[in-house]
Amino acid sequence: MSDKKNIPSTESYKGVRDFYPKDMFVQNYIFSVMRTVAERYGYVEYGASILEPAELYRSKTSEEIVSEQTYTFTDRGEREVTLRPEMTPTLARMIAAKRRELAFPLRWYSIPNVFRYERPQRGRLREHWQLNADIFGVASIESEVEIISLAYHVMKKFGAKDEDFEIRINSRKLAQAYLEEKLFDRAHYPTAARLVDRKEKMTPKEFEEEWQKISSHSFDMNIAPNELVNDVIKGLATRDIKNVTFYPTLMRGFDYYIDVVFEVFDTNPKNNRSLFGGGRYDNLLEIFGEDSIPAVGFGMGDVTIRDFLETRGLLPEYRPSTDVYLIPISASDLPAAQKIAYTLRTSGINVAVDLTDKKVGDKIKLADKQSIHFALFVGEAEVKNEAYKLKNLRTQEEKTLPVEEVVRFVKGL
Amino acid sequence: MSDKKNIPSTESYKGVRDFYPKDMFVQNYIFSVMRTVAERYGYVEYGASILEPAELYRSKTSEEIVSEQTYTFTDRGEREVTLRPEMTPTLARMIAAKRRELAFPLRWYSIPNVFRYERPQRGRLREHWQLNADIFGVASIESEVEIISLAYHVMKKFGAKDEDFEIRINSRKLAQAYLEEKLFDRAHYPTAARLVDRKEKMTPKEFEEEWQKISSHSFDMNIAPNELVNDVIKGLATRDIKNVTFYPTLMRGFDYYIDVVFEVFDTNPKNNRSLFGGGRYDNLLEIFGEDSIPAVGFGMGDVTIRDFLETRGLLPEYRPSTDVYLIPISASDLPAAQKIAYTLRTSGINVAVDLTDKKVGDKIKLADKQSIHFALFVGEAEVKNEAYKLKNLRTQEEKTLPVEEVVRFVKGL
Repeated sequence: MSDKKNIPSTESYKGVRDFYPKDMFVQNYIFSVMRTVAERYGYVEYGASILEPAELYRSKTSEEIVSEQTYTFTDRGEREVTLRPEMTPTLARMIAAKRRELAFPLRWYSIPNVFRYERPQRGRLREHWQLNADIFGVASIESEVEIISLAYHVMKKFGAKDEDFEIRINSRKLAQAYLEEKLFDRAHYPTAARLVDRKEKMTPKEFEEEWQKISSHSFDMNIAPNELVNDVIKGLATRDIKNVTFYPTLMRGFDYYIDVVFEVFDTNPKNNRSLFGGGRYDNLLEIFGEDSIPAVGFGMGDVTIRDFLETRGLLPEYRPSTDVYLIPISASDLPAAQKIAYTLRTSGINVAVDLTDKKVGDKIKLADKQSIHFALFVGEAEVKNEAYKLKNLRTQEEKTLPVEEVVRFVKGL
Repeated sequence: MSDKKNIPSTESYKGVRDFYPKDMFVQNYIFSVMRTVAERYGYVEYGASILEPAELYRSKTSEEIVSEQTYTFTDRGEREVTLRPEMTPTLARMIAAKRRELAFPLRWYSIPNVFRYERPQRGRLREHWQLNADIFGVASIESEVEIISLAYHVMKKFGAKDEDFEIRINSRKLAQAYLEEKLFDRAHYPTAARLVDRKEKMTPKEFEEEWQKISSHSFDMNIAPNELVNDVIKGLATRDIKNVTFYPTLMRGFDYYIDVVFEVFDTNPKNNRSLFGGGRYDNLLEIFGEDSIPAVGFGMGDVTIRDFLETRGLLPEYRPSTDVYLIPISASDLPAAQKIAYTLRTSGINVAVDLTDKKVGDKIKLADKQSIHFALFVGEAEVKNEAYKLKNLRTQEEKTLPVEEVVRFVKGL
């Protein structure tokens, strides 16, 4: 063990995160907001393993994704396995498998971790978590309106104001019809769509060069929204959702989107970027040889949302799950302290009992360093009087209370 | 897409599970019991990625585990990556990395998924989740007593009775001293420990054959508990935990346990087996070139626990997170229904709005098939009277109530 080259690093694997309790608190906060809003809309939770047969990603989604951007390896049984890069193919697989037993329409959500093999950079890690909410079985635009409303209310529940973000909406069919007219060959449309999708990440010159390879027209997308998009925008307006714009160059990356796509965009001039998005993908079940089912959904990543909330000062202050740090004044008070801990726990209070041989002052510091709200002291006199000193470590306020009062006081806060 | 060989299977990868909403409900129930009890004891949650540098498992834990039983692959940057087979090395890594900033003793828990490359069988899948609870920085047996109490109370919170399980305790040091006396050579002790650990899975003849390779004595472990084990048992008894036995052949697999080990054992004669266990592993930080820190912990897997709860009839009945299925009587009632849904959601009620064009009776069936408790009806007359029919789909009871009363009624249940 003194052999230096055998000492493993204490760093995590590249591009993934360790969650110390304070990080986990933020993560849990983000998940709980996502979960609460999804459930308010009647979405029920599902889940799956991160391990998927690689073939799942070889059919509809572009081959490029499997080969270049995913973690794919061969297991000892010669099976090709992929760490899921997104949840939608898994969801489609699960629904295809039990299609005949399930009650449609169905509303499902999940908060899976997904993996991309890419250079780690701000907002783009190799592993991140993602709220996925999807509605299956509704062909009308009511499902677009519902999914976008859900996304909007997640943002609001995080404390974002309408002016903090913009909801951009497009119809891929509308864009396709318009673009095809301008191309040398309609077969170039997928290339054109990908190019338009990347437009804002390219210089005008770069874009122009690529565009001229497939079109002799000058590029513009000065088009009016079609009826479908207008109806979605109206539907959102009747629900008081008004930070919505028609955005004809919006494409979204995935090939499976068939028409309406949307994106939530950060309006902060210093951080102008897409936060997340979604769209309609009715045909995804066809890859399993099944008939198509209407489907609309979105995926919202934790990393970009966390950045957004941090930038806007919307993250809550750390509060540990532990309510009370129970301090035996001396070692002989430990059995009595354990009895009181038991009572408090039975009443629904989270209690850590001090097991150190430190001085009382240092025990208090220990509680404080863990951000625990209350210290409760148990000594001989306290046990005799059946009243215990409760100290609020934020206000330094102290009270001497019987156990039942301690419960009421701590719970009241 | 008509090409059959391109159709991916709808089955999950071998040895892992899909969680449909009803499975996810059970999983969430199990996690929430684990979480609640861990937090009652003052443990705070941490987390990490499933991806770890492979070197993390090459030092203390046996080489065999990395090479044979884990998912290990080389990424495109020539890094060897392992899907974590257990959480303890990750925990040790995280603590070693921030040792100087952290306040000891610390109590941490996590519910990670872990991966083992093995033949899937009952209770042993390739991916499972595991409650890990660990206390760092307490050298006294108070930490063994606390960790075992926590494990005991998780079992009780699941509804298990004392007679449903047995807590087995041993001292590895005691067993080692006793075994070493019997061996040809003390250097054979690790082999002996592994053999004793596997004893109950072998036939007497198989065991005897292996034993005779390392010892000329006949095998027995008729020893009395040492003071340490007695003190742990007494400490548990003062907390009213009495289904505890000294079990001298208990070893636990991991090499890093240094003395006290324990195991929770299913007493069901049809299902006699270890459910989970833990122990003391003070020296794990040494693999990072750090001084040792007292540490005691355990890991409790979801698959074995789920089997246990199922066998004992202790799993709760499925209840979806959705409280109310809101049914517009006709299509034109949808906007009014959406307004009511909004009000209910704002009041903390989870509402799915029916978006189908089915008949009302079929809409009710749809709610019922999803096990939703209430249906609420919105039609022209209801809107005019500002009172809505609420139907309890379990009892078939109906009430006509204004929206605020609907809130109170649904919340009251």
